[in-house]
Amino acid sequence: MRAGRHFLQIPGPTNVPDRVLQAIARPTIDHRGPEFAALGRRVLTGLRQVFRTEQPVIVYPSSGTGAWEAALVNTLSPGDAVLMYETGHFSTLWSQMAGRLGLDVEVLAGDWRTGVDAGRIHDALTAAPDRYRAVAVVHNETSTGVTSDVAAVRRALDEAGSDALLLADTISSLGSIDYRHDEWGVDVTVCGSQKGLMLPPGLGFNAISAKARAATGKARLPRSYWDWEDMLATADDGFFPYTPATNLLYGLAEAIDLLLEEGLDQVFARHDRHGEATRRAVEHWGLELLATVPDQRSSALTAVLLPEGHDADHFRRVALERFDVSLGAGLARLRGRVFRIGHLGDFNDLMLAGTLAGVEAALRLAGVPIKGGGVEAAMAYLAEQP
Amino acid sequence: MRAGRHFLQIPGPTNVPDRVLQAIARPTIDHRGPEFAALGRRVLTGLRQVFRTEQPVIVYPSSGTGAWEAALVNTLSPGDAVLMYETGHFSTLWSQMAGRLGLDVEVLAGDWRTGVDAGRIHDALTAAPDRYRAVAVVHNETSTGVTSDVAAVRRALDEAGSDALLLADTISSLGSIDYRHDEWGVDVTVCGSQKGLMLPPGLGFNAISAKARAATGKARLPRSYWDWEDMLATADDGFFPYTPATNLLYGLAEAIDLLLEEGLDQVFARHDRHGEATRRAVEHWGLELLATVPDQRSSALTAVLLPEGHDADHFRRVALERFDVSLGAGLARLRGRVFRIGHLGDFNDLMLAGTLAGVEAALRLAGVPIKGGGVEAAMAYLAEQP
Amino acid sequence: MRAGRHFLQIPGPTNVPDRVLQAIARPTIDHRGPEFAALGRRVLTGLRQVFRTEQPVIVYPSSGTGAWEAALVNTLSPGDAVLMYETGHFSTLWSQMAGRLGLDVEVLAGDWRTGVDAGRIHDALTAAPDRYRAVAVVHNETSTGVTSDVAAVRRALDEAGSDALLLADTISSLGSIDYRHDEWGVDVTVCGSQKGLMLPPGLGFNAISAKARAATGKARLPRSYWDWEDMLATADDGFFPYTPATNLLYGLAEAIDLLLEEGLDQVFARHDRHGEATRRAVEHWGLELLATVPDQRSSALTAVLLPEGHDADHFRRVALERFDVSLGAGLARLRGRVFRIGHLGDFNDLMLAGTLAGVEAALRLAGVPIKGGGVEAAMAYLAEQP
Amino acid sequence: MRAGRHFLQIPGPTNVPDRVLQAIARPTIDHRGPEFAALGRRVLTGLRQVFRTEQPVIVYPSSGTGAWEAALVNTLSPGDAVLMYETGHFSTLWSQMAGRLGLDVEVLAGDWRTGVDAGRIHDALTAAPDRYRAVAVVHNETSTGVTSDVAAVRRALDEAGSDALLLADTISSLGSIDYRHDEWGVDVTVCGSQKGLMLPPGLGFNAISAKARAATGKARLPRSYWDWEDMLATADDGFFPYTPATNLLYGLAEAIDLLLEEGLDQVFARHDRHGEATRRAVEHWGLELLATVPDQRSSALTAVLLPEGHDADHFRRVALERFDVSLGAGLARLRGRVFRIGHLGDFNDLMLAGTLAGVEAALRLAGVPIKGGGVEAAMAYLAEQP
Repeated sequence: MRAGRHFLQIPGPTNVPDRVLQAIARPTIDHRGPEFAALGRRVLTGLRQVFRTEQPVIVYPSSGTGAWEAALVNTLSPGDAVLMYETGHFSTLWSQMAGRLGLDVEVLAGDWRTGVDAGRIHDALTAAPDRYRAVAVVHNETSTGVTSDVAAVRRALDEAGSDALLLADTISSLGSIDYRHDEWGVDVTVCGSQKGLMLPPGLGFNAISAKARAATGKARLPRSYWDWEDMLATADDGFFPYTPATNLLYGLAEAIDLLLEEGLDQVFARHDRHGEATRRAVEHWGLELLATVPDQRSSALTAVLLPEGHDADHFRRVALERFDVSLGAGLARLRGRVFRIGHLGDFNDLMLAGTLAGVEAALRLAGVPIKGGGVEAAMAYLAEQP
Repeated sequence: MRAGRHFLQIPGPTNVPDRVLQAIARPTIDHRGPEFAALGRRVLTGLRQVFRTEQPVIVYPSSGTGAWEAALVNTLSPGDAVLMYETGHFSTLWSQMAGRLGLDVEVLAGDWRTGVDAGRIHDALTAAPDRYRAVAVVHNETSTGVTSDVAAVRRALDEAGSDALLLADTISSLGSIDYRHDEWGVDVTVCGSQKGLMLPPGLGFNAISAKARAATGKARLPRSYWDWEDMLATADDGFFPYTPATNLLYGLAEAIDLLLEEGLDQVFARHDRHGEATRRAVEHWGLELLATVPDQRSSALTAVLLPEGHDADHFRRVALERFDVSLGAGLARLRGRVFRIGHLGDFNDLMLAGTLAGVEAALRLAGVPIKGGGVEAAMAYLAEQP
Repeated sequence: MRAGRHFLQIPGPTNVPDRVLQAIARPTIDHRGPEFAALGRRVLTGLRQVFRTEQPVIVYPSSGTGAWEAALVNTLSPGDAVLMYETGHFSTLWSQMAGRLGLDVEVLAGDWRTGVDAGRIHDALTAAPDRYRAVAVVHNETSTGVTSDVAAVRRALDEAGSDALLLADTISSLGSIDYRHDEWGVDVTVCGSQKGLMLPPGLGFNAISAKARAATGKARLPRSYWDWEDMLATADDGFFPYTPATNLLYGLAEAIDLLLEEGLDQVFARHDRHGEATRRAVEHWGLELLATVPDQRSSALTAVLLPEGHDADHFRRVALERFDVSLGAGLARLRGRVFRIGHLGDFNDLMLAGTLAGVEAALRLAGVPIKGGGVEAAMAYLAEQP
Repeated sequence: MRAGRHFLQIPGPTNVPDRVLQAIARPTIDHRGPEFAALGRRVLTGLRQVFRTEQPVIVYPSSGTGAWEAALVNTLSPGDAVLMYETGHFSTLWSQMAGRLGLDVEVLAGDWRTGVDAGRIHDALTAAPDRYRAVAVVHNETSTGVTSDVAAVRRALDEAGSDALLLADTISSLGSIDYRHDEWGVDVTVCGSQKGLMLPPGLGFNAISAKARAATGKARLPRSYWDWEDMLATADDGFFPYTPATNLLYGLAEAIDLLLEEGLDQVFARHDRHGEATRRAVEHWGLELLATVPDQRSSALTAVLLPEGHDADHFRRVALERFDVSLGAGLARLRGRVFRIGHLGDFNDLMLAGTLAGVEAALRLAGVPIKGGGVEAAMAYLAEQP
C-alpha cells in the first residue's frame, strides 16, 4: 500500500471527482420506474448543453469504441466509401474498425504531429464527387495531443459541395476543449465518459443531426444494439430500450452539473491555461513537443518526445514507481519515443504542479538531459493568469 | 423524499450489496498499468468459477443485450440458420435481434408459460439435418419466471447429431440458479451484470467454448467492438483492447468474492428456498403462477397472473406508491395481466417477508380478491427450512 | 458473509440513510476555513428547527452520554440537589452519573413500565421548596418504550413555584416523537445523533434556554471540554473551540435536510403509525407490552415482555442467527425478560413488515407460545392508514 | 464549485485515505452484537501496536481535547500540582484546561520555538520533591512544528526520583513520528484521530500505564463520561460502556491496517523525508523556520515565519483562493506572523510538490520576498532519497 493519492495523469480515464464517485455508488433503481424517468430526462437534456446541440444525444452502455461503431452502423451501408483522416493512433483504429465493418475506407495519411488539413479533405471530395458517404475526423487526437479544426472540415465539405456526413470523435475533447455540434454542422459526434466528462469509463455517446438520423433509413450495415431508432423511441420519456448503465448515469447527471456549475467557458479556459503551463514546462526542460503546429496543441493533453536513445516507457516506469504518477505511453509508431501528460478533467493548478514535479524528477532519474525549473516556469505562468 | 429503504424487487437490476457499491466508487485507475492487470486477471479468473468453465469468459462494457449481439456476430455469417425457442419476451427479443443482424431465424413457438421442450429441438434438428448453425435458448426466461433444462437441450443436439453451436442466455440465472457452462456443453453463455451477479447494469459477458472460438474463423457477420479475438489477445495479461468499464470491474471482483465466500451451492440453495417460499405465498393467496410446470418454476423470480378484470400495472403502481416496492411488469403479450417478483441477488428472508407483505397489502388495496396469510405461509416454510 | 441487508431494529443506532452515509464519506476539510463556516452555520441553524427552539444548540464530538454530562456540569455545582425520575435503565444511568459528578441526587422511584408522574414531581418540589436546582427527566425511555409528558413536568415546576432547571433527555425521541424545547419550557435538552437523527453515533447535543445559560455563571462543577461558553463564543461564525467531528457534521446537515424535506409533522406521524402497527402485532401474538399506559407507549420503540420461563436473550439470538435481525435486549432488571423492537429513524412499512415477520418466526422457533398473524394485523392497520 | 482536488495541508485534520472514507460509510451495526465485538477487539488490539504498548488503549467518542481531559480527570484530584511545559499554543490550552478543572498548574515558560528542556523539568522536580502528581508535555507541538524528546523527560523524572505521572500529548505525532508509550515510560498518552491516524476528527485516545491506572483509585476529580474503569470493564470483550462512534471505528480499523501494511518504521521514514524536503524549500526561499533547534524540527508539520511587515493570514488567503490549498494559521501570539504546512498523514512526494508549488507562488503573489526554486530544491532531495 502506497501512501497518498495516486496522480492519474494519463489522458483518460481522468481523475473522477468525489461527487461523481459517490453518485455512482447510490443504490440501483428500476430502469422502468418514475424515478429513473426523471434521471433519464435529466441526463439526456443536460448532455445537449455539453455537446452544444438542440438535437438528440444517445447514451450507450459501452466504451467510446462502441460509440465509434454506433456512428458507422447507423449511417452507412456495406461498401460505402468513407474518407478518414489519419491524425494518429486513434484515428487509425477508427478507420480500421470501418474497414472491418465492410466499409470502403480511404485514409488521408498524416504525420501524427499535425491535425487535419481541411484543404486535403476538400481536394479529396472534389476529386471524387459523390464518392464519399461520410468524412470522419478526430477532434482531439489522444495519441498525439493535436487538436483539429472541425469547423474548417465542415467548410471543406460545404465548399466541395459534398453531402457526405461529417463524423467527429470528441472522446478526449468534450468537456475540455470548446466543441459545438450544431454550430459546426457535425452530423455525428462520438464521445465517451472517461475524459472531460470526468466519469469512469462505461458510457458511449452519439450526438446526431437530423441529416444523420435521416441517413439511418438507407443504412444497411446490420445493427441492433447500436440502433438509434430504438434509443430515440423512448428517449423523450427518459427511458432506454434495454437496461442502461444506471449507476454511471447517476454519475453523468452529477458530472453535467459540475460542468455547468463551473460554466463550460470557464472549463475550457481552465484547460487552455493548464495546456499552456504544461507546454512552458516542457519547453523549459528543452524537450520537444510532438505537436508541431502551435495552435493545434491540445488543451487536454501534451505529448512529449524524448531525445534519441531514451526510452519513454522506461521513464514512465520510473515516474510510476518513484512518484506514483501514471503517464500516457507512446502508442504504435510512437511507442517508446513519446510520453503523454493528461491535464484534462477534474484538475487544478497544484495537481498540475505535482504532476510536472514528478515528470521533471523522473526525467532526471531516467537520465534524460533536461534543464531544471520547468515546474517553476509553469507555476509562474499560472500565477500570472488567474 | 421517502423514508426507509426502497424494495427493489424487479427481477433485475437487483439490490446491489454495499460492498459492491463501495467498490465501484473507488478512484478509477490506468487501464494499462500493473494495478489494473492484477484486477483484470482476478475478474477473468474468478468469472470462470461462476460460469463453471475452464474456458475464457469475455467481459464487455455493455448491457446483456450487447452480449447477445456478441454471441451472434462472433459465430455466425449472414443468412446462417439459427434455431431459437420462444420461451417469452426475452427469447423473442433475442430472435428479433438475430433477424435484424441478417440471420435466418427459425423460432419454435412457445406458450410463455413453459420452458424449452428439448424434444422439439431434437425434432427440428433431425427434420433439417445440417441446416442450423446454432441453437439458442434462454436458461431462465425473465419475463415468465420459467427455467429451462439446458443440459437436455445439449443432449437433444447430440442425439440429433447436430454440430450446431449451443447458445444460452443466463442473464437472469447466473449466480442464482445452478448453471454449468462446461459440463452442459454450452458453446456461448450470455450474461449481464445486474441480476445474480449483484452489480449495477453495464457489463455483458460471453463464456465461450473451443468450438465457438473456432467458429469465429468462418463467421462473416461484421464485427469490431464485439470481436472475441481482440478481447482474447490481451486477456491473459488482464488487459482489454479498448477502455474497459473499470469501476464496474471493481464491483465485479467484489461480487465474485461475495458469491464464492457464500459458496455457489449455498447461493443456489438460498434462491431455491426463496423461490419456494414465494410460490407458497402466491398459492396461499389463491393466485395463479404463470409457470405451469412445477419443476420449471424459477428460483430467481416468480410471475403471477391476476384474475381477469384486474390490471397488474395498476396493482404495481399501488405497491410502489403505498409501499415503496418496485415489482416487474408483465411484458408484451403479458402486459397488464402479470406481475413479477424478483427474489434473486443479494437477498434474505426478511427482505422477502417485507416484499410479500407489500404485495399482499397492495393486492388488497387494488381490489384483487385474495386469501390473507401469504406472508405467514412463506415465513412458515422459511422457518422450517433453515 | 450473509446475503441481503441486515435488519438493524434495535432502538438505536438506527438505519442510516444512504444519503447520510455518503455525506460522512466526503473528504474532511479545514475546520477553520470558510467552507466549514458555512457548514457550521447550516447545522447550528437547522438543529434549531429540529429541537423547535430559537435558542442555541450545542454540538459535541461525543455520545449522548457526554451530552448528559454536559447538561449537568454547565448548570450545577457540587452538592446541588437534583430531582430525577426513574423511568428505566437510562434515567437510572443518568442519575448515577449525577451522583458520580458530586451532585445530591434524589430519585423518584418508578416501575420501569410507566412514564413520569408529573404530580409526584410537583409534590417533591413543594415538599422541599428551594431544595432542587434541577429536575431531570427522560422524554422517551429507551429501555422500556415509555414516553413521558414533558410539558406536564414543566407545568408541575411552574405550579410548584420552583425555579429549578428542567433537563430533558430526548436521545431516543428527537426527530421521531413530537418535542418542543421552547414551547415546553425545557432548559436543557440532551440528545445524541444515532436515533431519530439517523446518523451514526458520535455527536451529542445540548439545546439550552437563556435561564440555563445564565446558570453557568454560578455552576461550579469543573468543566472544560463541555463548557458551553467556549462553544457559544464562536458558534455564530459556524466554528467550534476545538476540532469538531467534521464528517459527522456533514451527515448531520444531510439528516436535517432529510427531516425537513419529509416535514417534521410527517416524520412524527410516520413514527406514530409504525408504533401502533407494531403494538397491534404484539397484541395479536398475545404478548404483553411492557408499557402499561396506552398513551405513554412509544412511537420510537416497543418493548415486549416474554411469558415466564422464556429467555428473551435466547429469542434474540435466534432472531439474529436465523433472520439477521438485531433486536434490543432487556436491560438491567429487565434482562432476559424483555426484548425491544426499534421502529424509529429511516424506516418504512415493509422494513417493519420484514422485522415483524422475523420476530414472529423467531418467537416460534424459540418456543414462545404466540398466535400467528401478527404481521398481517400490522399490515392491515398500515394499509388502512396511508 | 472548484475543479480538482483541494490540498488540505493544515497540520490536521489531514487528508483521509479513500479506504478510510469508504469504511466510515458502511452501515452502522448493533454495538452490543457479535460483529461489533470483533470490530472492538480488532481496533483495541491494533491500537496497541500503533502506540507501541502492551497496555490498554481507551477510545472515546470525542476530539483530542476530550482525551486531554480524560487523562487529567482519571489520575488527579482537585488541587493536585501538575508541572506542564509551555511549548506553544496547544501546551498552553492543555495547561489552561488543567487549571479550569481545579488543578494547581505550574507552567515552565517556553519561547514557542524550542521543545521541552528536560533539564528544567528535572530541576523543577528536585526543587520541590513530592510536590507534583503529574508532569505533562506535548510530544509534537502543532502550533510551532517542534518535537520534544519524551524519553528525556522520562529520564528527568527518574533522575529526580519523582513518582509523578508522565502525561504526553501525541495528537499530531502518533502515526507520523516515532513514539513508544511503553519503552519511554509514559503513563498516559493522549491522542486524537484526525492527524497521523488519517481519520476524520471524532475519536480521542488514552494509552495508559499500570501506574496511571492505579492512580485512578485516589483520583478525586469528578468523572463519569471519561472514566477509564467503565471503559476497561468491557474492553476485553470489544465493547464500550456507552454507544461508541461505530463508523469512525470502522475507519480506525482500516487506518490501523494501512499503517501496519506500510510498516510503522516506513511511515516514520516517509514523514522524516517530507519534513526535510519541506525545510529545504523553506530555507531555499530564504524564509525562517520557527523551530530553531534542528533536531527538534517536526516531521509532521513545518511552521514558517514571514518577514516583518508581511501578514501570514493574508498570504494564506491568497494561497486558498488562488491555489485551493489550506495552510495552518499562526496561533495566539504567532497570529499573522507564521503559517504552517502540514505534511503528515496520507501523503506523498507529488502532493508535497504541489503544496510547495502553491506556497511558493502564493508567497510571491502576496509580495513576500523569496528566492524561487524551492519546489525544485525539495524535489531534488526527494529524488535523491527514495
